[in-house]
Amino acid sequence: MPATPNLTIGIIGAGRIGGLHAENLTARVRAARVAAVADVDLPTAQRLAARLGIPLATRDHHEVLQDPAVQAVAICSATDTHLRLIEEAVAHGKHIFCEKPLGLEVDGIKAAVGAAERAGVKLQVGFNRRFDPSFARAREIVAAGKVGDVHLVRITSRDPAPPPPEYVRASGGLLLDMAVHDFDMVRFLTGREAEEVYATGRALFDPGIAAAGDVDTCVTTLKLEGGALATIDNSRKAVYGYDQRIEVFGSAGMVAVGNPGADSHVFLDAEGARSAKPLHFFLERYRESYVAEMQAFVDCVLRDEPPPVTGEDGLVSVLLGKAATQSLKEGRPVRVGVG
Amino acid sequence: MPATPNLTIGIIGAGRIGGLHAENLTARVRAARVAAVADVDLPTAQRLAARLGIPLATRDHHEVLQDPAVQAVAICSATDTHLRLIEEAVAHGKHIFCEKPLGLEVDGIKAAVGAAERAGVKLQVGFNRRFDPSFARAREIVAAGKVGDVHLVRITSRDPAPPPPEYVRASGGLLLDMAVHDFDMVRFLTGREAEEVYATGRALFDPGIAAAGDVDTCVTTLKLEGGALATIDNSRKAVYGYDQRIEVFGSAGMVAVGNPGADSHVFLDAEGARSAKPLHFFLERYRESYVAEMQAFVDCVLRDEPPPVTGEDGLVSVLLGKAATQSLKEGRPVRVGVG
Amino acid sequence: MPATPNLTIGIIGAGRIGGLHAENLTARVRAARVAAVADVDLPTAQRLAARLGIPLATRDHHEVLQDPAVQAVAICSATDTHLRLIEEAVAHGKHIFCEKPLGLEVDGIKAAVGAAERAGVKLQVGFNRRFDPSFARAREIVAAGKVGDVHLVRITSRDPAPPPPEYVRASGGLLLDMAVHDFDMVRFLTGREAEEVYATGRALFDPGIAAAGDVDTCVTTLKLEGGALATIDNSRKAVYGYDQRIEVFGSAGMVAVGNPGADSHVFLDAEGARSAKPLHFFLERYRESYVAEMQAFVDCVLRDEPPPVTGEDGLVSVLLGKAATQSLKEGRPVRVGVG
Amino acid sequence: MPATPNLTIGIIGAGRIGGLHAENLTARVRAARVAAVADVDLPTAQRLAARLGIPLATRDHHEVLQDPAVQAVAICSATDTHLRLIEEAVAHGKHIFCEKPLGLEVDGIKAAVGAAERAGVKLQVGFNRRFDPSFARAREIVAAGKVGDVHLVRITSRDPAPPPPEYVRASGGLLLDMAVHDFDMVRFLTGREAEEVYATGRALFDPGIAAAGDVDTCVTTLKLEGGALATIDNSRKAVYGYDQRIEVFGSAGMVAVGNPGADSHVFLDAEGARSAKPLHFFLERYRESYVAEMQAFVDCVLRDEPPPVTGEDGLVSVLLGKAATQSLKEGRPVRVGVG
Repeated sequence: MPATPNLTIGIIGAGRIGGLHAENLTARVRAARVAAVADVDLPTAQRLAARLGIPLATRDHHEVLQDPAVQAVAICSATDTHLRLIEEAVAHGKHIFCEKPLGLEVDGIKAAVGAAERAGVKLQVGFNRRFDPSFARAREIVAAGKVGDVHLVRITSRDPAPPPPEYVRASGGLLLDMAVHDFDMVRFLTGREAEEVYATGRALFDPGIAAAGDVDTCVTTLKLEGGALATIDNSRKAVYGYDQRIEVFGSAGMVAVGNPGADSHVFLDAEGARSAKPLHFFLERYRESYVAEMQAFVDCVLRDEPPPVTGEDGLVSVLLGKAATQSLKEGRPVRVGVG
Repeated sequence: MPATPNLTIGIIGAGRIGGLHAENLTARVRAARVAAVADVDLPTAQRLAARLGIPLATRDHHEVLQDPAVQAVAICSATDTHLRLIEEAVAHGKHIFCEKPLGLEVDGIKAAVGAAERAGVKLQVGFNRRFDPSFARAREIVAAGKVGDVHLVRITSRDPAPPPPEYVRASGGLLLDMAVHDFDMVRFLTGREAEEVYATGRALFDPGIAAAGDVDTCVTTLKLEGGALATIDNSRKAVYGYDQRIEVFGSAGMVAVGNPGADSHVFLDAEGARSAKPLHFFLERYRESYVAEMQAFVDCVLRDEPPPVTGEDGLVSVLLGKAATQSLKEGRPVRVGVG
Repeated sequence: MPATPNLTIGIIGAGRIGGLHAENLTARVRAARVAAVADVDLPTAQRLAARLGIPLATRDHHEVLQDPAVQAVAICSATDTHLRLIEEAVAHGKHIFCEKPLGLEVDGIKAAVGAAERAGVKLQVGFNRRFDPSFARAREIVAAGKVGDVHLVRITSRDPAPPPPEYVRASGGLLLDMAVHDFDMVRFLTGREAEEVYATGRALFDPGIAAAGDVDTCVTTLKLEGGALATIDNSRKAVYGYDQRIEVFGSAGMVAVGNPGADSHVFLDAEGARSAKPLHFFLERYRESYVAEMQAFVDCVLRDEPPPVTGEDGLVSVLLGKAATQSLKEGRPVRVGVG
Repeated sequence: MPATPNLTIGIIGAGRIGGLHAENLTARVRAARVAAVADVDLPTAQRLAARLGIPLATRDHHEVLQDPAVQAVAICSATDTHLRLIEEAVAHGKHIFCEKPLGLEVDGIKAAVGAAERAGVKLQVGFNRRFDPSFARAREIVAAGKVGDVHLVRITSRDPAPPPPEYVRASGGLLLDMAVHDFDMVRFLTGREAEEVYATGRALFDPGIAAAGDVDTCVTTLKLEGGALATIDNSRKAVYGYDQRIEVFGSAGMVAVGNPGADSHVFLDAEGARSAKPLHFFLERYRESYVAEMQAFVDCVLRDEPPPVTGEDGLVSVLLGKAATQSLKEGRPVRVGVG
């Protein structure tokens, strides 16, 4: 029996999301092995390596990139390192999975995406929500024509608690940090580009966010090519947990995805019915999506197929976030210049 | 035993909605009796009277207004007769329940509402959705402070099928005809007025509506006093039936109301789970709300209390509909001049 | 235009259920009118007549039976009068709708049912749950073969609060009073007769029921002809309200009906999700079923078709209740002697 | 910083369930490492070891038992090897996690359980369903007294497809193979022992099962100490997938757990609503319960606490299965001799 071809992967960044990808690649993703992990905090890398039996742990990501056995890297480090690491990985001929966002500057993103394309290495961006089984099923239903012509898209996307103000300042704000996922989701669900965006928001409850000049509550309306409309509402703080719902409505029907509960019990007494809150946050809600996105990355490299989420997808979501931010500031609809 | 005081009511307009109110007043509303029914088509009035044992059926609504036993009237005739009938009922000192909309012209509405106020007769407007048990429960929860400060309101409101083009033309368009209910719902749920409105829409599927210069699909965003945001999506045609959902999100929680199914069965087989569509249209979905709104009207007259939906409520919803229509035409947010 | 043929009905018994049927016949059932109402308490009959515009109110039900305009009667009086009133109505050639149970004595039921058959008058028994839209839909699905061969039936049937002990004593006990509805439901859903029954129960919480020699909690297992099994659980007291669920499982699938909520709101906060209890009791839960069963009665008379629930159905449910009671007492499975 | 104490575990049996436990112990269970894996099919052990970085793979489980670094074993081999392996592990002083059932012979189970007790090694039995987040939440609610005195327990437990006839023959039949999980669940949910059992079943659709003298469809009723009743329905074949529901009803309320769907989308069109089937089978439905049960095992060893599922629990479930089997054969209720 010939050996199954495995993809050998190095992890750059051993924090929460890097650790999660390492666990999934070790235990649940088929045809993959993790050969090395790098983190600027060496003990963090070492602990992860010890726990999962990863041969190499290092402080210096160049060791990972220079390892000829490593065929691909998963970039899970701080956002402001993404573009530089992509360029370095391209230079070493490694295929790349990169957490989102690629960056906040359009020119830099274009340069990195272009470099990967020219070098012929795969570049997949970590829009993990596309791999959520329910959202993926919704996309299948839309793509199969079962909702007919798309007329309306509704997305609710609310975090359980706001990030610290310093994060908000660095992140580009709610529309580039949170809503960027939702802009990608609109594109994913409909297969359509947005032509115009109108965002209106307020800092209703978080003084730190207000001081940073950002909003904590926002409604965004998109006009899509062909005429469909999308409305997205975002909040930095849903006390009941992570709220992630989508809906696509068209001439032949509607598909909607609600929040899976943290468990499925119902308790009934003289006061009424009680049941569980939604799964608390992204690690719980998107547990399976992280497995599936990494499986898709491994498969696309091994089969030499295009990645299911491209650098272009990463770029467009940032363009939308920037147009929405401009609309928010200027109080008027803004045309989107999709390149 | 003293006789229970009953309110004696005359019905003006014996069509679908007039017949429904007559049935409810006869069989389900406490402390009410129907003494007379008028319709410009006499046989329609007569059939209703015979079926429900109503003593008087007439072609001429003046007979109803001149009957000294009649204490209140329910105006269920064509929209363009509402303002005139209100003025006549006021002149006869009758309390008034009037179907919505009061009219399409702001000045006329103001005049009629003012006349009723000066005469001291009750005037209740037929925003029946406020009496839906689920929406009323949502309002109670918001009013009790359980969602905390309101941050976001979401409303979906879609009809099963578009009306004929001639109706669209006379009705003032989607924003004055359909969305007016939703504007009222935002005010009812939050107890807040809207300060600014942005509407964007398209005629995506109905050429007759397009020819009438109206849209069949629309998203409206409202900024409310105090900062909360509301988003409403409307469609003239949901193939799965009447889609009427609301959601109020705030600092302490969220209350949402979904669509009750036409029945509550679930069928599971190798293909998946199947269940019933939503209740088909307003007569089914709002069956109980029609009973409750008429009970509230009867009670407010007998107890000499203010009506739960006032002429002012009728006026403000029209003002919002007009501002939204202007926004739709001009492609920009429009300030609402309330009051 | 020819007059629509109407069925003229007299109501015997103007209590809660008689009043409900009178309301429905007046306002919601097509092609019916109520001409007379009798109650041993004359003011009760008079109030109902005044409220609904019924021409005749009387203390003496013979007046109703002797009225040549009355074509059918609805027997809504105390259970121990049912069989006598059926015989009298038969003697006057009136069609009969009779509330359940027909009686508690098998011989008496057989005699009354036989008399109606010989006289050619319709006799419909008030198993209203068959007309619940959800249960009726489940029956359609089973009858259409969509669940395949039936293997299992599950029924939960729990009341919100126990009746007074004197009622329990007169009613024949839980299995003849409550479970008789569920035995009928098993027959309705499957179209099958039961061959053997095993009931086990306890008086777990109600000392009055214990003193009356009855149980307040019970599980009954039925073996149906052809091999399917049914399990029914009953309780006299569900603090969360009326609990009425059914499920039919077979070789090709399953259909289930849950409890519709008193309303359809959901409230989410940091503690979890809360929603409404089930509709409180039979008047709320089965509101539509009462309209539909009376419509079916009116239609079967006007069209000269067999009634959808026959005297035989009334008889068999009592036979099952008696066999189950014997099983409960003897602690062993009991064969059912279905005639 | 002191090193976190880890539990070093050997896996005996590298098939589907052994592989699953190995994955979880490697990637998701805290404070555990897998040091060795044995399987009578050496390549199976080797593939698992290579994939997860387990140092030792062997054909001979004695190598695992003799390894002084191994503190505990997870017995995941064929059922008929369980009792022998427990005795060997006890002899080597290893703590034991053993898949269910411990065996089919009461005397052998008692001997093995006794040996572990005398040796002071932990023995946890693999009733993984107790660790399902929803069932565990239901247990918490019952244990906290929120349903009050327990009156009724309902369990539905249906597999997606019947096992091969040879498996049925060796397994002891439906009541010892499938329902044994449900008997354990009744005990877990209520904290009560059963006193009497009545089982009735048929081979309705599987000729191989009929030929083996077993049933494919079964309803079991249990009387619990203190008076509560439990009803369990089992089927070997639910075409819509794995059906695992529980419900505990008492004087103060009810807690119920339904089937989580394979995903959470809903699709609505003119035909109705469609959603996903339940998660297909135990690997999907109980994914999280397997992680939690192994975490509980690791924790109980490291903290020297009693295991949450004991050898006694394994024994009692078999006693119940045997009593139920006798009831099925004899057609009468059977007393359970516990202890």
